Amino acid sequence: MNKPIGVMDSGVGGLTVVKEIIRQMPDEEILYFGDIKRCPYGEKSLEEVRKYTIEVADYLVANGVKMVVVACNTATAAALDILEERYDVPVVGVIEPGARSAIQSSTNRKVIVLATRGTVNSGAYKNAIINLNKNFQVESLACPKFVPLVEEMRYKDRVISRIVVHQTLKELYRSEADTVILGCTHYPLLAMEIQDYFGDSKKVIDSGYETARDVSAILTYQKARSESRDDVCHTILVHGDTERFEYILKDWLPFTLYEIKEIEL
Amino acid sequence: MNKPIGVMDSGVGGLTVVKEIIRQMPDEEILYFGDIKRCPYGEKSLEEVRKYTIEVADYLVANGVKMVVVACNTATAAALDILEERYDVPVVGVIEPGARSAIQSSTNRKVIVLATRGTVNSGAYKNAIINLNKNFQVESLACPKFVPLVEEMRYKDRVISRIVVHQTLKELYRSEADTVILGCTHYPLLAMEIQDYFGDSKKVIDSGYETARDVSAILTYQKARSESRDDVCHTILVHGDTERFEYILKDWLPFTLYEIKEIEL
Repeated sequence: MNKPIGVMDSGVGGLTVVKEIIRQMPDEEILYFGDIKRCPYGEKSLEEVRKYTIEVADYLVANGVKMVVVACNTATAAALDILEERYDVPVVGVIEPGARSAIQSSTNRKVIVLATRGTVNSGAYKNAIINLNKNFQVESLACPKFVPLVEEMRYKDRVISRIVVHQTLKELYRSEADTVILGCTHYPLLAMEIQDYFGDSKKVIDSGYETARDVSAILTYQKARSESRDDVCHTILVHGDTERFEYILKDWLPFTLYEIKEIEL
Repeated sequence: MNKPIGVMDSGVGGLTVVKEIIRQMPDEEILYFGDIKRCPYGEKSLEEVRKYTIEVADYLVANGVKMVVVACNTATAAALDILEERYDVPVVGVIEPGARSAIQSSTNRKVIVLATRGTVNSGAYKNAIINLNKNFQVESLACPKFVPLVEEMRYKDRVISRIVVHQTLKELYRSEADTVILGCTHYPLLAMEIQDYFGDSKKVIDSGYETARDVSAILTYQKARSESRDDVCHTILVHGDTERFEYILKDWLPFTLYEIKEIEL
């Protein structure tokens, strides 16, 4: 079924999910919606996040996507259930895949979740893990300095990144967990520093990377995969200014064919 | 939905899939069907494998399972499509999850599949991988000595296992692949020797282990997970003699609560 997969985020973070979907399934076309005018959702009320998420997902569904991927932890925690009820097409969030992967990976059943304050406070990862397997213990840590580091492109400075990562994670130094979930789609850009910090003692799991795997499983199960084809062109819709968005897009997805459009809601 | 997950295999190999489903989702109940009277399917004609697989899956569905897991590579290659058409409940095979995981894991897009002669000849793994991402290269190797090693319990003798594994795999010594799929549900019992042989140069992927992950994704997506509960008792149906089966069952799943029944078809 050669329809696009709809992917939404409040900003650029969801592009890490897109990158992995394209790497795993190059025949799939993406219709991305970046709601940067109202970014970040993490600072908004639950009501507002729900309203924005539904608005953006409605837009994607009205444009004929075969699946909606909510590539934002805050939006997933706030509105996944509502979207699942609302549409006939499958809706995939980023939290369940990360939780599932952590359960698969951990042998001592102790998991750390690194996320924004909003996601940590929602308890969404902890609930998803316990819901699958109540024998797990989950520690969560809010890392408020990580998103600005990425959004302001300072993540490329390895010295600064290392300092921020070390300062943030030092309270987990004695944790016995063997698995760490990156519970924010911005954090994969800091994965190298985070893995370095923990060394071999903990496996770091990227929720976005794992979400692409679930997208693949559900598309296959639904018989909704695209046919083999070349030179797939993706569409990027930006609610807000495209310039800064495109700068990051080119940095993260350098060899990808796309069209970018500024839109109003 | 507190119905059991149906899992079928021609013998004991599917228990490696059961072990991982129970580890990841201890609230789920398993109804297992081991068709040992007609084991191994790998030696039968395609027609026969189809007939047996449908017969066993029909039995599971008639007994109210919420999903059918075909935990046998030969049966998956031969009959997955037919079963998907035949039932309303989801049907999950072992090949797609292994293929998906290899694509997720490999960075150089070169994958080795180790399997029985039947599975290698069917080309099922290669097709599943290429179907997801045509940029991948797949090498396959039939390992006819591995199943007897496991079925006859000689896999516990590390010296013998190592010799058989080294002799079988030596032609892959120069392969550039960075990922190896264990494409037979018996092979996880030899995973340690196989990983030792390849060392850090290749990641070894267990199809059964990955299948449990897809079972989790599809159950969650279908809202069909069981409620939290304790002391789940699984049911093991054996078509044929239970004695030998139970010996292996106790060895592989030592702390699991189950009832075992010998049945006729």
